[in-house]
Amino acid sequence: MNVGDRHYRTIWLSDDGRSVEIIDQRWLPHEFRIEKLGTVAGIATAIRDMWVRGAPLIGVTAAYGVAMQMAHDPSDEALDSVWETLHETRPTAINLRWALDEMRRFLRPLPAGQRAAAAYRRASEIADEDVGLNRAIGENGLAIIKDIAARKQPGEPVNILTHCNAGWLATVDYGTATSPIYLAVEAGIPVHVYVDETRPRNQGAQLTAWEMAGHGVPHTLIVDNAGGHLMQRGAIDMVIVGTDRTTADGDVCNKIGTYLKALAAADNDVPFYVALPSPTIDWTVGDGLAEIPIEERSGDEVSLVWGKTAKGEIAQVRVSPEATPARNPAFDVTPARLVTGLITERGIAKASREGLKAMFPERA
Amino acid sequence: MNVGDRHYRTIWLSDDGRSVEIIDQRWLPHEFRIEKLGTVAGIATAIRDMWVRGAPLIGVTAAYGVAMQMAHDPSDEALDSVWETLHETRPTAINLRWALDEMRRFLRPLPAGQRAAAAYRRASEIADEDVGLNRAIGENGLAIIKDIAARKQPGEPVNILTHCNAGWLATVDYGTATSPIYLAVEAGIPVHVYVDETRPRNQGAQLTAWEMAGHGVPHTLIVDNAGGHLMQRGAIDMVIVGTDRTTADGDVCNKIGTYLKALAAADNDVPFYVALPSPTIDWTVGDGLAEIPIEERSGDEVSLVWGKTAKGEIAQVRVSPEATPARNPAFDVTPARLVTGLITERGIAKASREGLKAMFPERA
Repeated sequence: MNVGDRHYRTIWLSDDGRSVEIIDQRWLPHEFRIEKLGTVAGIATAIRDMWVRGAPLIGVTAAYGVAMQMAHDPSDEALDSVWETLHETRPTAINLRWALDEMRRFLRPLPAGQRAAAAYRRASEIADEDVGLNRAIGENGLAIIKDIAARKQPGEPVNILTHCNAGWLATVDYGTATSPIYLAVEAGIPVHVYVDETRPRNQGAQLTAWEMAGHGVPHTLIVDNAGGHLMQRGAIDMVIVGTDRTTADGDVCNKIGTYLKALAAADNDVPFYVALPSPTIDWTVGDGLAEIPIEERSGDEVSLVWGKTAKGEIAQVRVSPEATPARNPAFDVTPARLVTGLITERGIAKASREGLKAMFPERA
Repeated sequence: MNVGDRHYRTIWLSDDGRSVEIIDQRWLPHEFRIEKLGTVAGIATAIRDMWVRGAPLIGVTAAYGVAMQMAHDPSDEALDSVWETLHETRPTAINLRWALDEMRRFLRPLPAGQRAAAAYRRASEIADEDVGLNRAIGENGLAIIKDIAARKQPGEPVNILTHCNAGWLATVDYGTATSPIYLAVEAGIPVHVYVDETRPRNQGAQLTAWEMAGHGVPHTLIVDNAGGHLMQRGAIDMVIVGTDRTTADGDVCNKIGTYLKALAAADNDVPFYVALPSPTIDWTVGDGLAEIPIEERSGDEVSLVWGKTAKGEIAQVRVSPEATPARNPAFDVTPARLVTGLITERGIAKASREGLKAMFPERA
C-alpha cells in the first residue's frame, strides 16, 4: 500500500535481480527504513530478529532466501541446509515451514543449473499469490462495508474497529483484516478506523496506525480498554480482526484481547468479522479453547514499553515496580458463537463446522 | 498500609502539628517520595498537579488546607476564600467539594479564636472516618473471599483480578477494592492479585502493583487485554473494582475497560464485585449509560507512555506515529446486570434499585 505518495510492498526484488529489499519493521512507526538483503545469513537475521513479521511475509522472505542459496550453490545438500537454517529462525511459524517445503518440493526435481532462476521465479509467485489471496479477502469484506455504508447518510463514514496488525505489513500487500478497508478507500467509500493499541507489543499503535497514516486512511488510536465503551455509544459499525489460527469449528485464536472485543460486539449487536486466508484454518482442531495451547511470552513485554523519547531516541521505559512480576499470554480464543462471519478468499463463511465445510468442501 | 516494613497512610499530620506529610504519587512506582505541605498554596498545588489523587484523599487533603488557612487567618473571609482556592484545583471532584462544604459548615459557627484547632481536629476526623468506611467495606468483602477460599484446597490462593487503582493510595488507608484483599492477608487467607495495567494512565501498573509489592501481597501484572483469557482458563476466582460513581439503579461508572472485564466475568461465571463507600452512589441518576457523560481526556495520554529508562530517568516515550490522532474516553459504564454485588460499608447490596434501597432505606 502507500507510504505517503509511493506504493510499496513489504518485500520486493532489487534491481540487481538477486537481492531483495524489505521494510525493516523494527523501527516503525518512528523511522521508515528499507534494508537490502542479499545473503541467506541476512535473510535469517531479518526473520529471526523480526525485521519482517507476519506469517505470509515470513514465508515469502524465506522463499527468497532459498533462491539466494540456489544462486550461490544449487546442490541438494545446499537445498537441505538452507531449509534447516531458515526453519530454525522461527520454528513455530507454520507459513515459514510451508514456504520452505514448497520451495524444496518445487526445486528438487530440477537440474542444478536451472534451480536458481526457477527459485527466484517461484518465490516471486508465492509473493503474488499472497497478494491475490488478500485482495480476494478484501473484495469479500468490501461487500459488508458497502452494505453498512448504504444504510448511512451519504458521506458518513463506516466506523471499523481493528485489533493488532493484520495489515499489509504482515503480508506482502493489502493485509487480511485491512484489505476490505483499503478496497473501500479505493472504491471511494468513506471509512474511519479505530485502531486498538494492542498491548503489550503495541502492534496497533506502531504498525496499523502507521499503515493507516501512510495510506491516508482516516483513523484514531484508542487504548484496548476503550472499544467496549465506544460500542455502547454506537461509535463502531463493525469489527474486523485477523487470526493466527482458526479451528474447523470456527473458534478464532488471535492476539490477546480479541475475545474481549468480541464479547463487547455481541453485547452491543456490532458485527464481528475475522478475515483469514484459508491456510489459516486448522482442520485438525475443533474446540479452540480446549485444544489450542497459548504461548506465554516474557513478562518484560508487559513491564517495558518501547517508544521514541522527546529527544528522538528509541528507548524503553519501565512502567511497573521492579518487584512486580508480569504474566504475558500472547493470544486468546474467541469462541465461534461470538463471530459474525469468517471473511475468506472464497467468500464469507459462518463460523461453524457446517459453514467452513460448505465453503471448503474439499478440505472438511 | 505497609511500604516494606513500615505502615503509612497517604496523608498524616507532621510532628509540628501544623503541616501535613503526603506521599507524592507522581513518582510512583519508581520513587517513594514524601513531601511536607505547610501552606494553602502547597496544598492547592498538590491537589491540582496530582501529587495526591483519589476522591477521598483529595477531600482530606483539602480539609487540612482549610485548617492551615484558619491557623493563618481564621476570619469568615479567609474561610470563604480558601473554599474557593481549593475548590478550583479539581472543580469536578465531588469529594473535594463535600470536604470543603463540611469544613465551612463546621467552622462557621465557631469563634475565630477556636477555628484553627477545631479545623485540624475535624480534618483528622474526616481522615479517620475514611479509614473506618474502607475498613467496613473490607470486612464485608472479606466474607466473599472467605467463602471462595473455603471451596479451595488448603493453601491454594484465591485469585482476584482488579482494574485501575481503588487502593489505599486513592484513600487515606485500606482503599476500597483493595480493602477486602488487605483484610484477607491480615486474616491469613492466601490471595493472589492479578493487576490490570490500566491503560492509558497505567494506574494498575504504577500504583496498585506498587501497593501490592509494598505490602507483600502476591500479585502479577497483566495487560488489560489478558483478563478475559485468564477467566476462560479458570485462573480468576473473582473480580473486585472500585467506582467513580454508581447510579441508584446499580450501573457502575469506573475507569475505562471495566465494562470489558465485567463482560468476560459474566461469560465465564466469575463473580464481579464493585467496592464503594455509599457517598459514591449518585441517587439522582438511574440509567448510567444514558445519563452519565463520559470525560474525554487528552489523546497524549494514549500516545505517550511514562516510565523509567534504563538510565533511571523518568521519561515519556511516544508509541504511535505523530500523524495519528488518539481518542481517550476516561471511564465507561458497566450495566447493573453484569455486577454480582456492590460491597458497601453496610454490607453487600444487589446492583439494582431494590438492592440499594434495601441497604440505604433513608436515601432511596
